[in-house]
Amino acid sequence: MAKFLTNREESYAQWYNDLVIKAGLAENSAVRGCMVIKPYGYAIWEKIEAELDKRFKATGHVNAYFPIFIPKSFLSREAAHVEGFAKECAVVTHYRLKNDPDGKGIIVDPTAKLEEELVVRPTSETIIWNTYRDWIQSYRDLPILINQWANVVRWEMRTRLFLRTAEFLWQEGHTAHATEEEAITETRTIIDLYANFAEELMALPVIKGVKTEAERFAGAVETYSIEAYMQDGKALQTGTSHFLGQNFARAFDVKFTDKSGKLDYVWATSWGVSTRLIGALIMSHSDDNGLVLPPRIAPIQVVIIPIYKGDSGIEEMRPTLNSLREKLEKAGLSVKVDDRDTHKPGFKFADYEMKGVPVRIAIGPRDLINNTAEVARRDLLTKETVGIDSLPSLIPSLLEEIQQNLFNRALELREKNTHYPDNWDQFRDIIENRGGFAMAHFDGSAETEERIKQLTKATVRCIPEGERGEAGKCILTGNHSEGRVLFAKAY
Amino acid sequence: MAKFLTNREESYAQWYNDLVIKAGLAENSAVRGCMVIKPYGYAIWEKIEAELDKRFKATGHVNAYFPIFIPKSFLSREAAHVEGFAKECAVVTHYRLKNDPDGKGIIVDPTAKLEEELVVRPTSETIIWNTYRDWIQSYRDLPILINQWANVVRWEMRTRLFLRTAEFLWQEGHTAHATEEEAITETRTIIDLYANFAEELMALPVIKGVKTEAERFAGAVETYSIEAYMQDGKALQTGTSHFLGQNFARAFDVKFTDKSGKLDYVWATSWGVSTRLIGALIMSHSDDNGLVLPPRIAPIQVVIIPIYKGDSGIEEMRPTLNSLREKLEKAGLSVKVDDRDTHKPGFKFADYEMKGVPVRIAIGPRDLINNTAEVARRDLLTKETVGIDSLPSLIPSLLEEIQQNLFNRALELREKNTHYPDNWDQFRDIIENRGGFAMAHFDGSAETEERIKQLTKATVRCIPEGERGEAGKCILTGNHSEGRVLFAKAY
Repeated sequence: MAKFLTNREESYAQWYNDLVIKAGLAENSAVRGCMVIKPYGYAIWEKIEAELDKRFKATGHVNAYFPIFIPKSFLSREAAHVEGFAKECAVVTHYRLKNDPDGKGIIVDPTAKLEEELVVRPTSETIIWNTYRDWIQSYRDLPILINQWANVVRWEMRTRLFLRTAEFLWQEGHTAHATEEEAITETRTIIDLYANFAEELMALPVIKGVKTEAERFAGAVETYSIEAYMQDGKALQTGTSHFLGQNFARAFDVKFTDKSGKLDYVWATSWGVSTRLIGALIMSHSDDNGLVLPPRIAPIQVVIIPIYKGDSGIEEMRPTLNSLREKLEKAGLSVKVDDRDTHKPGFKFADYEMKGVPVRIAIGPRDLINNTAEVARRDLLTKETVGIDSLPSLIPSLLEEIQQNLFNRALELREKNTHYPDNWDQFRDIIENRGGFAMAHFDGSAETEERIKQLTKATVRCIPEGERGEAGKCILTGNHSEGRVLFAKAY
Repeated sequence: MAKFLTNREESYAQWYNDLVIKAGLAENSAVRGCMVIKPYGYAIWEKIEAELDKRFKATGHVNAYFPIFIPKSFLSREAAHVEGFAKECAVVTHYRLKNDPDGKGIIVDPTAKLEEELVVRPTSETIIWNTYRDWIQSYRDLPILINQWANVVRWEMRTRLFLRTAEFLWQEGHTAHATEEEAITETRTIIDLYANFAEELMALPVIKGVKTEAERFAGAVETYSIEAYMQDGKALQTGTSHFLGQNFARAFDVKFTDKSGKLDYVWATSWGVSTRLIGALIMSHSDDNGLVLPPRIAPIQVVIIPIYKGDSGIEEMRPTLNSLREKLEKAGLSVKVDDRDTHKPGFKFADYEMKGVPVRIAIGPRDLINNTAEVARRDLLTKETVGIDSLPSLIPSLLEEIQQNLFNRALELREKNTHYPDNWDQFRDIIENRGGFAMAHFDGSAETEERIKQLTKATVRCIPEGERGEAGKCILTGNHSEGRVLFAKAY
């Protein structure tokens, strides 16, 4: 199987697409821009969902569910929001189909036209803040710390599996607070939570920062993001947390009485990560043989493949396989024994390599005699023969080592490809020829940002927290710069 | 709070609606027929989801995700299916909005009309079987045992929170098999799984059986269902599992090569339960004081309410509260300590009663001296004072007792209200005056079924497995009947 994957050198985009298909993660559906998330891809999403959900709950959040439809008029309430979201979206105009009088299948029933069109949610701030109005009267009703796991639809013209699809899965948090300070603290708590999740679970080093006005969420006062480095030198925004000020409270008239009896608008945040994270996983760790998964996010952490001949061969091995599996599962690992007789070991080796299973244990007839096994690690593609009895203690620490190695490798790659250009020529050379992150001085104006984007396709990914260095001069205009910001081409 | 709940005697429908609102489970949204599932209601759904998901996986199923949109033409492929589902649904006709040239908000962009309209999925057989065509070539690709957790939309005219809403949450299993026998086994495995789940977790006794043709799923060869008895004498279908034969494989041309090299259509099943289960929970166990939750499905199993005065009062209690909470949590229980000073104990008592928390522990200043606590059980509304030290061993068994009691109570109520009429007058009297289940002889014809429905509004809920008694004569026509079937008015 592996030989059919396009090399990254040849075409990174084609390699990515091949990998998603061949590892069985997702595929395009019959509906333009919508993907089918296949069981193996969905199993990764389930791991992401379970771990994030645990962390949201540990920080006091609860889940709820709001309607998939948003009345069209809601979108125009918040001036900036409508510009960002109302445009490319799926619009429901009718609520009935009927048999075609000409007998050709079914047609939309023209008499079943909605009075007001409904938009399939591209994000839920509007419907949620319209609901919060009835939930909030006094400071006693605050804070509201709600998250929702849901599907959303944005009618993207160019789609790519996981990275940009018309429908995707995500979580969206929507919180309401009595004070500005508390809302800002919430926004930061969440971006820290996302960063820790990305680094600890996904082995993905991220840069935390705030967005410029041009890149800010439509309707936000401040957008915090985490940005990750992809192997091809581009950046991928892997999570955002927005401080919304009182914008949505004003738009939907959500006021509360504070402790002193004064009436004020409620302060808001919203934040989300999506199935895009799976795209980030792929593009940061994988290689020309296929997916490479960090053990903590891998649906299968260890695969055991017996090499045998005929029914008697496998029966002879069964006690060894079962005992090993039991011991590894007892150690808390997710283990699969693949003893199918419909596929040859070589096929299985390539298949689990393609699927990025962190550790493969192969046991053949000679191993059975010697009480040994061949242990292969996916990250380094190395193999060694070890005693079977040592596996229950060896494998958990090996998985931790792989997890750490993937993080270190990704961090090194990013650091190697993070440059500090001091003038326009250096900047342009990095963006256009060398690729990677450019930490550069910038005067902070929207005009300069737009010109740089037009000239190079690079955008300000974020104004990083800390590590911006000293003040300097803008690479394009020479104007004053308060510190370096992160420029890159982005997904 | 409790006094504001309408009595069941007065109006069962109003009681139900009051309870859903006042227990904080759900509410109507700004979008017609769509509900907002509030955090407490959603927490119950999360418990249902987690337990079902575990059971699906234990029986070899995996999760995946298919698009929310279905091309209109897909719905007409399966003849029976289109009749059942294509009619009342949300139709997406456009993919863009634009600013109104007259400056009045936003309008649908007439130039952004879809070539083919998309329907928001009312159920996913069509899009999934269209996908399976590419996944299945040989018997080696079978079985496919996939489940999906998703939202679906059916444009219902009359909606009721949880019971019938335009959008609802559910799981839908879609499996593909090489043989008819295997598909039928799967259909039965799942209806058994649903029945066990309902009885063990939800304390809901159910009657398993198959549907008549009139009540069958649109496109199914056979529909198995579980039916539960509601306090007002009506039946509620709480889960269905469909044997689809080769209908969808034919409609979407999904063939496979069997072991002998012969080409045949694939055999299918589909099955689902939805947020409707929460409606069933409410209507089977609750009372005029509010929700009553079976402990195994309760988000909070035990609430501890300290009764104290001032900051010094609560500080004095803190070590006792913390130690008790820790011990109960160690026993695997979900515990909440409500020490808010913004609400009085009486308010809290009524509120947790309304929310159906199975066990309430109150600890006052005198209890602190005596090392006692007041334990109240929600199902019987009884209280007793016990030693605090005995709680960690007492409460888990008390919860089990409550779980069992709720099941027994629901079963007794159903049995008391299950009648065996032998003629039309008796039958009519039960359905129209006494209410409840009528196990009656029926000649099995669609005409008779329809006439009975028109005369009494009662339908055949299912032809129960086993326990149908001997052959007899149809209550309406006097024709031969193979055995009794379950008639009732239904939600």
